[in-house]
Amino acid sequence: MNIAVLGSGTIGQSWCALFLAAGHQVVAYDPDPAMEASIIRFVNASKSALQSLGYQSAGTLERFRFSPSASDAVQGAELIQENAPEKIDVKHQLFSEIEPHLDPRAVILSSTSGITLEELQAGLKDPSRIVIAHPFNPPHLIPLVELLGNHETDPLVMGRVRTFYESLRKVPVELKKSVAGHIANRIQAVVWQEALHLAREGVASLADIDKAIANGPGIRWSIYGPNQLFSLAAGDRGLEGFIEHLGPSFQSWWSEAGRIEFDSRTLEIVREHVEQSAGDLEAMKAYRDELLLKILEAKNAVSKGEPEK
Amino acid sequence: MNIAVLGSGTIGQSWCALFLAAGHQVVAYDPDPAMEASIIRFVNASKSALQSLGYQSAGTLERFRFSPSASDAVQGAELIQENAPEKIDVKHQLFSEIEPHLDPRAVILSSTSGITLEELQAGLKDPSRIVIAHPFNPPHLIPLVELLGNHETDPLVMGRVRTFYESLRKVPVELKKSVAGHIANRIQAVVWQEALHLAREGVASLADIDKAIANGPGIRWSIYGPNQLFSLAAGDRGLEGFIEHLGPSFQSWWSEAGRIEFDSRTLEIVREHVEQSAGDLEAMKAYRDELLLKILEAKNAVSKGEPEK
Repeated sequence: MNIAVLGSGTIGQSWCALFLAAGHQVVAYDPDPAMEASIIRFVNASKSALQSLGYQSAGTLERFRFSPSASDAVQGAELIQENAPEKIDVKHQLFSEIEPHLDPRAVILSSTSGITLEELQAGLKDPSRIVIAHPFNPPHLIPLVELLGNHETDPLVMGRVRTFYESLRKVPVELKKSVAGHIANRIQAVVWQEALHLAREGVASLADIDKAIANGPGIRWSIYGPNQLFSLAAGDRGLEGFIEHLGPSFQSWWSEAGRIEFDSRTLEIVREHVEQSAGDLEAMKAYRDELLLKILEAKNAVSKGEPEK
Repeated sequence: MNIAVLGSGTIGQSWCALFLAAGHQVVAYDPDPAMEASIIRFVNASKSALQSLGYQSAGTLERFRFSPSASDAVQGAELIQENAPEKIDVKHQLFSEIEPHLDPRAVILSSTSGITLEELQAGLKDPSRIVIAHPFNPPHLIPLVELLGNHETDPLVMGRVRTFYESLRKVPVELKKSVAGHIANRIQAVVWQEALHLAREGVASLADIDKAIANGPGIRWSIYGPNQLFSLAAGDRGLEGFIEHLGPSFQSWWSEAGRIEFDSRTLEIVREHVEQSAGDLEAMKAYRDELLLKILEAKNAVSKGEPEK
């Protein structure tokens, strides 16, 4: 497939690496011509990880071209993954530049995390051809892609988009309604809020709370979400049995959950944490990346037995 | 070490399997003599998982004895892991039965999730010898153990307890202050609350929200907690840089996070989910357990490179 990747920052580079690894023809655009070298470095750097996840063309640059012109980059592309800066004016400017050159069936997939679909659509003559396809960092490795269309979206487009990401072994999840932060960031937000709240209350340090998450519930959340986990936790009585048994406890924890802001107290807690937990950033990143890859490999290896949901 | 395990339900059986696997002498007590056979079944069933995690004595029953008498079970035990039913009267009755027979240096480790340390201590003549040591299910596999002592706790006890769990390769996290739900359950609660809230709002189905978690943020939480992850997500600007950049977004998601109850609307959403997601429970459990083991193996394999926190 011919894919244009518009905007070649962290997200754009990661998409390029994945699309190339899956054997697609990729033209990347960025207003800064120096990004060509950055993309190539990223494709090389991510080669072995993508290879070990089974992407046969990982690291191939034969089907890659860089273009400093957006209208050139989209020529003949069936899909356009847009990763321009999160400024509506910049995105609208880009849309007006490319729209006259788009293939009639081309679909724009916006990686935006904070701009609404309606705002994006306002910059296009044909609003039916754009959907939000928000990845989770880093896009070439983490499976989740959050999809959002609306009543203006061409009814056939969402199916094509879903099939495309599934063909890359991503896990597309379609939102039925626009909401700030989509799903994943909102879930991240409540976790971080409760972590900061507990540290504010003096229950434990942020480092210890992190440790509790990554050695407790976090391990299970890399397998299943909460509803599925709790469905399996009450014998054959399922989720409703779990709620009968533990609903009152959860409800009391809900009523006590913290509501905080980034006020001076929160920032003080963060500052203390930063002072106490200084470490070797590169070693921590290496640990994160090595373990992430092993977990993704494990998820692939066991996925054959995964029940349909 | 001589360990008594009091109460041989799911949690007690799991502790037995782990303590035996680590080479300890275990006497298990349960008022129901039929539990002896259950424990033995559990030890056998968990043998291969514990073996593959490197516990050399996994499955060994030579150092195991069952006793239908609590006072007999605690004779000569240095540690008593208490997993009696979550009823304060039952626990107090048990304490009064065992206390006259305890070794002078014996420490009681309570697996309670919902009873406070102060309530537990009220049932002992010597409140200095009990701490909460709350595992995360299943205790023989998940590393986290939440510890809690208070001003009455013998100052030397917490160090011994921590060393004990570390020797089992558990990850003890000490709470400095009592709070309902400790850390892990409170974090689980906010995740589930936001998941149910988003489903109530029609953003996505519970099944899709689960999918988003387990294929997005959940994967990263099995590696690091949110503070550590975000510390690595803003280049060399660390956690404070991350907050400068994304703090306002998180704050807006916090302000929009849902507050729900198990009212008729929530229960209706749950019922719909249960109807739509019926599947093979045994296959799902097998998938969960196989993947859990692979992730724990991966965490062990990479842990050498894990930076000190």
